[in-house]
Amino acid sequence: MNVLVLNCGSSSVKFQVIQTDDALIEKDSDLCLAKGLIEMAGPKTMVTYQATGKPSSKENVPIADYRAAIEHILDWIISPQASLEGIKSHSDIHAIGHRVVHGGEKFQDSTLIDDKVLAAVEEFIDLAPLHNPPNLKGIRAAMDVVGPSVPNVAVFDTAFHATMPETSYIYGLPYEYYLRHKIRRYGFHGTSHRYVAYRYQKMLDIPTDKVNIITLHLGNGCSACAIKRGVSVNTSMGFTPLEGLLMGTRTGDMDASILEYIAHKDNMSLHDLDTLCNKKSGLLGISGFTNDMRELLKREAETHDKRARLAIDIFCTRLKRYIGGYLAEMGGADAVIFTGGIGERSSAIRRRVCQGLECLDLLLDTSANDHIGAGEEGLITREDSKLKAYVIPTNEELLIARDTYRVVSGQSAQVR
Amino acid sequence: MNVLVLNCGSSSVKFQVIQTDDALIEKDSDLCLAKGLIEMAGPKTMVTYQATGKPSSKENVPIADYRAAIEHILDWIISPQASLEGIKSHSDIHAIGHRVVHGGEKFQDSTLIDDKVLAAVEEFIDLAPLHNPPNLKGIRAAMDVVGPSVPNVAVFDTAFHATMPETSYIYGLPYEYYLRHKIRRYGFHGTSHRYVAYRYQKMLDIPTDKVNIITLHLGNGCSACAIKRGVSVNTSMGFTPLEGLLMGTRTGDMDASILEYIAHKDNMSLHDLDTLCNKKSGLLGISGFTNDMRELLKREAETHDKRARLAIDIFCTRLKRYIGGYLAEMGGADAVIFTGGIGERSSAIRRRVCQGLECLDLLLDTSANDHIGAGEEGLITREDSKLKAYVIPTNEELLIARDTYRVVSGQSAQVR
Repeated sequence: MNVLVLNCGSSSVKFQVIQTDDALIEKDSDLCLAKGLIEMAGPKTMVTYQATGKPSSKENVPIADYRAAIEHILDWIISPQASLEGIKSHSDIHAIGHRVVHGGEKFQDSTLIDDKVLAAVEEFIDLAPLHNPPNLKGIRAAMDVVGPSVPNVAVFDTAFHATMPETSYIYGLPYEYYLRHKIRRYGFHGTSHRYVAYRYQKMLDIPTDKVNIITLHLGNGCSACAIKRGVSVNTSMGFTPLEGLLMGTRTGDMDASILEYIAHKDNMSLHDLDTLCNKKSGLLGISGFTNDMRELLKREAETHDKRARLAIDIFCTRLKRYIGGYLAEMGGADAVIFTGGIGERSSAIRRRVCQGLECLDLLLDTSANDHIGAGEEGLITREDSKLKAYVIPTNEELLIARDTYRVVSGQSAQVR
Repeated sequence: MNVLVLNCGSSSVKFQVIQTDDALIEKDSDLCLAKGLIEMAGPKTMVTYQATGKPSSKENVPIADYRAAIEHILDWIISPQASLEGIKSHSDIHAIGHRVVHGGEKFQDSTLIDDKVLAAVEEFIDLAPLHNPPNLKGIRAAMDVVGPSVPNVAVFDTAFHATMPETSYIYGLPYEYYLRHKIRRYGFHGTSHRYVAYRYQKMLDIPTDKVNIITLHLGNGCSACAIKRGVSVNTSMGFTPLEGLLMGTRTGDMDASILEYIAHKDNMSLHDLDTLCNKKSGLLGISGFTNDMRELLKREAETHDKRARLAIDIFCTRLKRYIGGYLAEMGGADAVIFTGGIGERSSAIRRRVCQGLECLDLLLDTSANDHIGAGEEGLITREDSKLKAYVIPTNEELLIARDTYRVVSGQSAQVR
């Protein structure tokens, strides 16, 4: 089955075309035929396309909205420039899989999109005002463009965390806030945490109930997930993606009283504060110049910049704390998994996070850590390390494609 | 030296009269001569006095303000009813020690109060609007009543945490918020954490730099502290006492974005939200009926009340997470110390917190845990437990008295 995977953000549409079915999943040899990105900035819209194995092409095309973006993508997919194997017309796209950020408490699994699902996703706009509206626009545009013959499937960032116990998802607020407003921890990055947990299980060839790990998704957004007997039992992002680890531009954990103090001191609205905490904080806010970990590490090495170092140190210290915290909460774990851009590519960050974790019986193999290649998965702790650490590249699009295939073919998407 | 220890809260004045000096400190045999509490509620003001070894007396006396309260206390102290040994007149009170909640970044140690100190404490009202004003009123009233011949000393709740590194006290906000508004982690309960660390050191007869412990102060307010080489390196309360562990009526850690959501949904002001998070949340908010851990445990046992159980479970889970988190952050620790009302008296809570911490090599001795008496200090882990756990009753008043003596006699209060 050829699946178009769509990730519609507030100003961009990312896509992949992935060929998948039971046999391909079994052999882990699903094929990514192409991928691309449309960065929508009015007349300056940039379009990047790449058929697998060919050079990428970049062009400036004015694209007005999600519908135009998706039409543009579908046209390219069947074009001679792309010449994707087995895809000659739109009817060769068999299904579309959509990343949807917030599934509320309703969606505990990937699901075929119908009017009821659309209405529910709309309802959750309230919970994810930044993310669900573009997701929804993308779904509506895609359904409109391809018509009713092509099934659309929603894969939710929150779904993997539906297994969390109440002790993890209930906040310290009066319980009626959960009942009345559904204020609770939802967690995000679920597709990524689920994917690397699946890879770990495959790699070790163990049953699901032996998957006791802490996964660290470290990109521009960052989250940790405690996975016990194969299911999420806690995660660091909360009601929104603000909570938890230090991120590129988000504060992560913070005394909530600070908001009142700043609002009072600087006469800021709650909306301004939300922007401050989500867009101007984190690595960017502490360092004062970038949210990019590579730049921070470079600056620290070259000029001993104190605030670059501080930002990195806070980032790493908070990770240590979550690893130890989840280990204690779970009553032990077998491995820590690094994934996401920083987790996969920065040996320096992994080393700094693992430094001092000998007290948890995690013994880093510094050579293995330094020599793991881009896109490779592998062990980075010593043979005698009781708590293991792995690097496992994430692949959310692949899991969205697989879920889409499974849902469309009437299987449960609960399997990985 | 006879020290009057005063703790002036928003609607109460607590006091103790403690006899201390170098010889008494050395032998840990300082004498608490008397204690009492004035609960100020206008015409319903209740006064409780107790001379050590005698029955307590309770009376209803209208007391208008802090000055009247302190005069009342001083009058009782020298009265024949009290008949405290060696205290016949006001001149037998040699110094007054005041608990002050917030010392900002300025006060890293206990200090003799003069006009400059008063001005600084006044300046920090902004940072501790609930706590510093009554503290300050108490100091001013006491100085006024006893006159310039009696020295007054301030002992700050924040001072012990002055040793925290930047990685612990800087939030993920833009750095300028620290520079401009001094928004940072301060931490509280410092006198309590410092006291139990001192007791631990004494008990084991080890040098300060071998004190690597995690102290848990569990009362109506709760906080954890990571103590490395004898000094605080992190603590769970933050810019205000709201952050961290679940408390009697405080939320503890929470996604800060929730505030905007509630404000919007329920049309609440930031001030209302502050009250909600500090006074109506925590154990009270989750259970829906009490902030008292004893009542919760009773209800859970008697009626299997689900929300009582949930409140207790969240309380214990969060403690586990902090223990593991600090252990990882410190690169290992030797012991966990339970103190404060719940920490000292509830073997059930200690057991539930320690359950599952075998993964951190903490092996509870359930019999020792069950049989430790009220006011007793002792080990509650097994001989073969690598990470130890102790119960150590706190005594903030004693440390305030000792600091007062040391400051007045020209010694450094840095020693414990």
